Amino acid sequence: MQTIRVHASKEYDICIGSGLLQQAGALTAAVKAPCAVMLVSDSHVEPLYADRVAASYEAAGFTVHRFTFPAGEASKNMHTLVQLLEALGAAGLTRSDLLVALGGGVTGDLTGFAAAVYQRGVDFVQIPTTLLAAVDSSVGGKTAVDLACGKNMAGCFWQPCLVVCDPDVFATLSPDIFADGMAEVIKYGVILDEPFFEWLEHCDAHAGAESIVARCCRLKKQVVEQDERDTGLRALLNFGHTIGHAIEKCSDFTISHGSGVAIGMVAMTRAAEAAGCAPAGLCERIAALCVRHDLPTAVNMPVQALCAAARSDKKRSTGGITVVVPQQPGRAVTRKLALEELDAWIAAGCAAEDENR
Amino acid sequence: MQTIRVHASKEYDICIGSGLLQQAGALTAAVKAPCAVMLVSDSHVEPLYADRVAASYEAAGFTVHRFTFPAGEASKNMHTLVQLLEALGAAGLTRSDLLVALGGGVTGDLTGFAAAVYQRGVDFVQIPTTLLAAVDSSVGGKTAVDLACGKNMAGCFWQPCLVVCDPDVFATLSPDIFADGMAEVIKYGVILDEPFFEWLEHCDAHAGAESIVARCCRLKKQVVEQDERDTGLRALLNFGHTIGHAIEKCSDFTISHGSGVAIGMVAMTRAAEAAGCAPAGLCERIAALCVRHDLPTAVNMPVQALCAAARSDKKRSTGGITVVVPQQPGRAVTRKLALEELDAWIAAGCAAEDENR
Repeated sequence: MQTIRVHASKEYDICIGSGLLQQAGALTAAVKAPCAVMLVSDSHVEPLYADRVAASYEAAGFTVHRFTFPAGEASKNMHTLVQLLEALGAAGLTRSDLLVALGGGVTGDLTGFAAAVYQRGVDFVQIPTTLLAAVDSSVGGKTAVDLACGKNMAGCFWQPCLVVCDPDVFATLSPDIFADGMAEVIKYGVILDEPFFEWLEHCDAHAGAESIVARCCRLKKQVVEQDERDTGLRALLNFGHTIGHAIEKCSDFTISHGSGVAIGMVAMTRAAEAAGCAPAGLCERIAALCVRHDLPTAVNMPVQALCAAARSDKKRSTGGITVVVPQQPGRAVTRKLALEELDAWIAAGCAAEDENR
Repeated sequence: MQTIRVHASKEYDICIGSGLLQQAGALTAAVKAPCAVMLVSDSHVEPLYADRVAASYEAAGFTVHRFTFPAGEASKNMHTLVQLLEALGAAGLTRSDLLVALGGGVTGDLTGFAAAVYQRGVDFVQIPTTLLAAVDSSVGGKTAVDLACGKNMAGCFWQPCLVVCDPDVFATLSPDIFADGMAEVIKYGVILDEPFFEWLEHCDAHAGAESIVARCCRLKKQVVEQDERDTGLRALLNFGHTIGHAIEKCSDFTISHGSGVAIGMVAMTRAAEAAGCAPAGLCERIAALCVRHDLPTAVNMPVQALCAAARSDKKRSTGGITVVVPQQPGRAVTRKLALEELDAWIAAGCAAEDENR
């Protein structure tokens, strides 16, 4: 087991290791006195792992309730949040009780948001079951649900009290869902870690999943510790996300987050090259890495629709939107674009994609 | 104008003075660069004051949007919250924009909660238009909406960036609504300030509204600065609230918050006297003060229903519920009661009320 300590507004451990699913209750008992637990999972994950996790918590002295919702991004909304909050009330959970998020990013974001607002804040544990959640959403305390007006538009910064990651569970992920996580993994290499980027160019991601998760969590922890509330450095983690979110939104969320981010990283790098802000050839190298890990690098969508969706991104502030521009593998900078510039970048990034198709 | 500086997780001023409604925009411009504003008010307050406040913000360079919802506690729910959040998105508000809560406690709590979660947190200004909101809910950063499972069950701690209170607006309050605020005013005297308690026993509350607001805000500020997240001292502010909330809930919110708190304060003090935890005669003195300020001191409700409602209070934690016991005017302590004890206290507090009727 590897343990990574995060020093944010709360201090907590990320525990990573084979077989940890069965130890979740014992690991939690080390940081939290036995209490009532609401175990939250979706309709895919519940039949696979919820019994095992519930048994582990019961063995450690916790009383376990369950809340299960239909799998999919479409559930990540205020309606499901209200159902979960009412379930917490109906189960009689108090301020000193605990939520446990067992699942992917949707489960973690939704459960974290519920924990942040139920009775103005209760503890929660993240048990990510997808690679995407393990390397990204389960660490750092960003919680959210989608609104009609955009993705992740309502949420809180709320840190978990523990993250437990058992890479064995990735065995039940479909190749698509595993690849989805690899988009965020590649992102860390591009923006923060050149040796990692190079290693990804020839690694076996499945065999190396545990070290991939540990490497990414260490990188993310360093960023979060410096900028928990996303007012500066943490913006780097949004590389590929402005266009990525726009693609997800325009596809009505039929295109996954990882696919959107992969296409977004390639498009942003292509636009940056065209604008003379990134070295020639970097786009090609990132695209090759995405292809190697079974990710798409282009999508056929009207540029106008993408521009409109990107303008409603919550990273927008008065006078423009901050995007992330890669400089070389392992190094990236943020840059504020006026909305008209953003349109031009999206056009430059996505027009070339059309030619490539 | 009196200015009270609050040093919480955010630093902000409470500005209190006659005629300040017309200066809200200028006062805000001193702490926040002109941006887009969503002015939130209810169907009672909007026709009375929204034009004046909007004009003041526009004169100071802000762009003003409006959101108005049906007046009443019944609107303080997740449904209205979602409508407000979607309105923020539709108006294109970004992270650097501003919400303004113009109204009573419902407006402030709802707007503050929306500000806390929209894009994971934006600034907001409180402009309380009721005595209750001015002395209590607009200061200290507690935001919330009600759930089916209970009052204020979902919310955040989220401080405003400014509070602007113009006591002139109290002139349009009905006697009932003014009295409602006096319940919280009396509470401050009982738990924290003996000279203030004694002054309330013979003051003219309407004529003295500005100094009442300033006195209460100073008392609350001291408590919030020491215990912003309500883990200790701040619990004192809940005096009368456990039974008060139960009464509101059992009446289906036809009994107001202030009436509930007044009855709750009297009942808790009576129960404390019966248990030998408070000096004889204190209940009578508090009840007389409530009557003097047009507040009820008893209600005819089944004790069992009150007990059940009180058990679902969010102040409950594992093993019991913390209540506030007054020792003398100006001094109170917290005490954890087991749930069975709480039932007995409610019975003792409310049974005697039945006799008094």
